[in-house]
Amino acid sequence: MMDKINQAINNIKPLDEKTMEEARKRQDSLTKPRGSLGQLESLSVQIAGIRGNPRPQIAHKVIFTLAGDHGVTRGGVSAYPSEVTLQMVYNFLRGGAAINVLARQVGARVIVADLGVASELERHPQLRYKKVAQGTDNMAEGPAMSRKEAIRSIEAGMELVEEELTKGMDILGTGDMGIGNTTPSSAITSALTGVDVAAVTGKGTGLDEEGWKRKVKVIQKALALNRPDPKDAIDILSKVGGFEIGGIVGVILAGARYGIPVVIDGFISGAAALIAASLSPQVKPYLIASHQSSEPGHKKILEHLGLIPLLNLNMRLGEGTGAALGIFLVEAGLKILNEMATFAEAGVSEKI
Amino acid sequence: MMDKINQAINNIKPLDEKTMEEARKRQDSLTKPRGSLGQLESLSVQIAGIRGNPRPQIAHKVIFTLAGDHGVTRGGVSAYPSEVTLQMVYNFLRGGAAINVLARQVGARVIVADLGVASELERHPQLRYKKVAQGTDNMAEGPAMSRKEAIRSIEAGMELVEEELTKGMDILGTGDMGIGNTTPSSAITSALTGVDVAAVTGKGTGLDEEGWKRKVKVIQKALALNRPDPKDAIDILSKVGGFEIGGIVGVILAGARYGIPVVIDGFISGAAALIAASLSPQVKPYLIASHQSSEPGHKKILEHLGLIPLLNLNMRLGEGTGAALGIFLVEAGLKILNEMATFAEAGVSEKI
Repeated sequence: MMDKINQAINNIKPLDEKTMEEARKRQDSLTKPRGSLGQLESLSVQIAGIRGNPRPQIAHKVIFTLAGDHGVTRGGVSAYPSEVTLQMVYNFLRGGAAINVLARQVGARVIVADLGVASELERHPQLRYKKVAQGTDNMAEGPAMSRKEAIRSIEAGMELVEEELTKGMDILGTGDMGIGNTTPSSAITSALTGVDVAAVTGKGTGLDEEGWKRKVKVIQKALALNRPDPKDAIDILSKVGGFEIGGIVGVILAGARYGIPVVIDGFISGAAALIAASLSPQVKPYLIASHQSSEPGHKKILEHLGLIPLLNLNMRLGEGTGAALGIFLVEAGLKILNEMATFAEAGVSEKI
Repeated sequence: MMDKINQAINNIKPLDEKTMEEARKRQDSLTKPRGSLGQLESLSVQIAGIRGNPRPQIAHKVIFTLAGDHGVTRGGVSAYPSEVTLQMVYNFLRGGAAINVLARQVGARVIVADLGVASELERHPQLRYKKVAQGTDNMAEGPAMSRKEAIRSIEAGMELVEEELTKGMDILGTGDMGIGNTTPSSAITSALTGVDVAAVTGKGTGLDEEGWKRKVKVIQKALALNRPDPKDAIDILSKVGGFEIGGIVGVILAGARYGIPVVIDGFISGAAALIAASLSPQVKPYLIASHQSSEPGHKKILEHLGLIPLLNLNMRLGEGTGAALGIFLVEAGLKILNEMATFAEAGVSEKI
């Protein structure tokens, strides 16, 4: 049943060390003190290793914004009503959401997909239909989904990447939309890192203190009831996850499998990255953490994955908004690598 | 003698509170949870207040990269020879330096100016001649420049902004080039913040431990010998400053005076911002800290000015490279403000 996922996992290659060395050498030959562009330089070396090209360029940028609904919202864990997921999908398709604005700014195309919105969406030429089910079940009363559905959501995410490959994809960003989805993300983070629920649970889109306490209790209840196996990431996804989260797991696995740099958005994408890295630690070198969300659990995720976020702007929107900004910074690093003059070319004296 | 500077200082207006409120209101009406885009939102509100326009746009972006040499390099305070300043100016003019690459990426024009390079530069249509003198004197043996020269360098920076105004300028970034200029920047920072020299002195472009110790001693000697008056920023600039630093002070003052958002680069620009803010605290609301440099003194500067840096990428190149990235983030905030759909427009339900 896991054939497609296992095939991806077995085909993730380590980064190309020789190419990375070449890129590092070129960075050191450019007219600036060595290392003086910090993370812009290391990003360029990482991308060179992922692409197997010492001077890679990114022409095609794709952000995957995956939507799903959550049965657990019936427990009052979100400041917004569940129908906002659907309404925001239409907003994405009309180009009026934050991710549309930022993707336009950085020249990325946005792929909007329904992984599990709770109602039927109208057909739209820009919408990808990958619905696993009409929203998850309430994880506070039983598993959010079956194991089969969890696997299907990951496969659906992989398909989204595969369907875009022929149009060109040099870098991808992850994104999410799902009212209530910080709740499963906190549950996943607690289950996979072992950190206490309260320490990885935030106020989401704007809960008050009472709402936050209720949310912590709901997550604790869901974990106690479902007892997800920390050694089995698919079990965790099925018991306390979400369809769009599973989809993002698939996007990440496919990115690594096809040698595409994966720019991770915030907390929800981070929870998906935890699952992907648990399925295969080989994905880690393909990941770039775009930003650190103001959701407290996200810091724990980044620490657990050993990722240093590029930005820390107190953002907590999701959709792929952080990923869009991260893609800009990756591109900055590559433009430095490709377009700067060397000391020799510019006739500039080197270090004494 | 200070007429031009005083006139600027006396004409800096406070930000337009009413316009900021309007921009804040619009941010809150857009299809995202309130405040969920963090600093992108607050940047847009700040720019609205600076421009007196609730929906400002930035079409014209200008980065000022000012060059000057430093007599103190004779004390062995830099890893690179002094002639690199001149060589890098030619590199800027040919478009091969990091600032050229990043300015192209963000659509900014770079204004390269000679404020005090130690030799005569060949004429070039893109180079602005504002030379105060052929490099400063060695501050470890006496004042770096006369008071008159310090004032002239500030005026020259103001002129650079004024000369560009008619071509359009909606935002400006500061930048520097000057071998040895972390040394005066550390001296200025220590003099104006009262923090110990060793705590605000870094390894610049790549000193070893021995070199760093020598640099600290040179700065201590310069401060002990010249005794700059901490209450008199012009005195500090003349005794332990640099011509390009004075020029950046002028760029900042003129930016504030003409109602233009000023994106500050790293440590050298930060030292100039300290001087500008000491001359007139009214400039502070016009400042945006693009990034936190890996030079230790920069953190102290940002704390002293009460600025939160947008980026922390371990960069320490100068030239305006951080400012270029900062301009991109400011533009992201404004695009959000201008291009996103409101809840009403998109038919999205608001908070419960």
